[in-house]
Amino acid sequence: MTFDMELAAKRSRIDAALTEYVADKYPETLWEAMAYSLLAPGKRLRPLLCLAACEAENGAESDAMPLACALEMIHAYSLIHDDLPALDNDDLRRGRLTSHIVYGEAMAILAGDGLLNMAYETMAAFCCIDGGQTARRAAAMRIVAVSAGAYGMIGGQTVDVLNENRIVDETTLRYIHENKTGRLFRAALCAGAAAAGADAARVARYDALGSAVGFAFQIQDDILDVTSSASTLGKNVGGDSRNHKNTAVSLYGLDAAKVRYDALCGEVRSMALELAGESFLAALLEYTAVRLR
Amino acid sequence: MTFDMELAAKRSRIDAALTEYVADKYPETLWEAMAYSLLAPGKRLRPLLCLAACEAENGAESDAMPLACALEMIHAYSLIHDDLPALDNDDLRRGRLTSHIVYGEAMAILAGDGLLNMAYETMAAFCCIDGGQTARRAAAMRIVAVSAGAYGMIGGQTVDVLNENRIVDETTLRYIHENKTGRLFRAALCAGAAAAGADAARVARYDALGSAVGFAFQIQDDILDVTSSASTLGKNVGGDSRNHKNTAVSLYGLDAAKVRYDALCGEVRSMALELAGESFLAALLEYTAVRLR
Repeated sequence: MTFDMELAAKRSRIDAALTEYVADKYPETLWEAMAYSLLAPGKRLRPLLCLAACEAENGAESDAMPLACALEMIHAYSLIHDDLPALDNDDLRRGRLTSHIVYGEAMAILAGDGLLNMAYETMAAFCCIDGGQTARRAAAMRIVAVSAGAYGMIGGQTVDVLNENRIVDETTLRYIHENKTGRLFRAALCAGAAAAGADAARVARYDALGSAVGFAFQIQDDILDVTSSASTLGKNVGGDSRNHKNTAVSLYGLDAAKVRYDALCGEVRSMALELAGESFLAALLEYTAVRLR
Repeated sequence: MTFDMELAAKRSRIDAALTEYVADKYPETLWEAMAYSLLAPGKRLRPLLCLAACEAENGAESDAMPLACALEMIHAYSLIHDDLPALDNDDLRRGRLTSHIVYGEAMAILAGDGLLNMAYETMAAFCCIDGGQTARRAAAMRIVAVSAGAYGMIGGQTVDVLNENRIVDETTLRYIHENKTGRLFRAALCAGAAAAGADAARVARYDALGSAVGFAFQIQDDILDVTSSASTLGKNVGGDSRNHKNTAVSLYGLDAAKVRYDALCGEVRSMALELAGESFLAALLEYTAVRLR
């Protein structure tokens, strides 16, 4: 099977699992809003990274699928809340109108809350399945929880919001990148590996790998905001500069950002090969880092 | 020790534990906003119910304290988001200005997200402590997660928001009451009992007890919104009627609501005595139901 076929097959199993979680519930408006964002067309990078790391550690797909879905729920909720008028005030996301434009602000806030909470309902239920894997699943859940919260992703979003319209230094920009985007990539790889039974030393190697690929992804995102078009990206471009956002491009300049990006891609490649050899994981990381070059 | 002394002692241990979770972190504004709401003066009913149920099942306080704190974090986040302009648009809560008035809307949304996520960070870490209690703690966490989400509290908030300015039937009002308020009371009792090792049959009895006390509490709340004053309640009164909210009073009328409330208090009393005899739990439930009569 080629990488593209395997990617499509895994993505479709992820989408099928996600669909199950939000099918036919009461109150309808809430679940509809949750489904609208959760099932929006997307690359499903975080769930794919989670499944790939689990596979690289010889785990079955079922050892990681609920964690993979939980990561996508957390990603989807963070986009809904990020797009709200009080935050980035964006009306286009993944090629569609944002949640608060379609469902109103109140429902967008509640749908975001609902997806965040559902991520933990999903992981808690996964911990409770009999079969002697409760401890390693709880450990994987803990990795996700710490990464998604105020010590991680929410911390990154906060510093990003607080520094809009201000020039930041490299340390601050690095904090934003590492936490707003990088932390969930790292969590995806680490949780997938931990759920397959990887020991702490191996999980730490997945963490370093996730850090590199997350940083590469973010720089790429900043570059694309300058060089790409709305129809390619499925969201408004130039938004970073319009909102006076600090990005790798505004800090380093476009050319230096590209150089840094290329170096990171090389790092990701060699780390992945050392960890798992030629594998779906290695190909997926390559795909993640270079998605639109 | 009298009930009042025991209540004060437990409350102060809960507050000390809550304070630890939000002390001195980066980014400061986020943690300050989280602490502002989490540590606001309050009755700490949900954590108290959780500790009391654990104690009634012969558990140690340390078997339930992280769950108790997580319940207060969830309660605090739900108040922050509920008070937002897009939802109830309230500027006074627990006798102080609401989060978005003090910190702005963006930070209030993120602080709410941060507290919700922190509840799960706390419970996940609790599951991961060695000592053979991972499975029962995961079960307790699952109870909390399901109760707090779209199947529970968030579902109740949604139906409440969707029916503002509309007359609802008794079934709908009951759904709102059971989920918006009752579910966390139930979860508090059930999680405390489960963490102490109670079996499914006993946990189910705590669930019924929580349902009754939650309903009594909500009717009481609706009655007080009509009959009390802002200085006693620490929040604006008459808000329900001003916002055309559906309440037990608007549905049944004030006198019938009082009759129903008295009957529920009797139920709570006899269920608690059957379950745990004369105990801190029984006294706490009495206190919860009749707090301001």
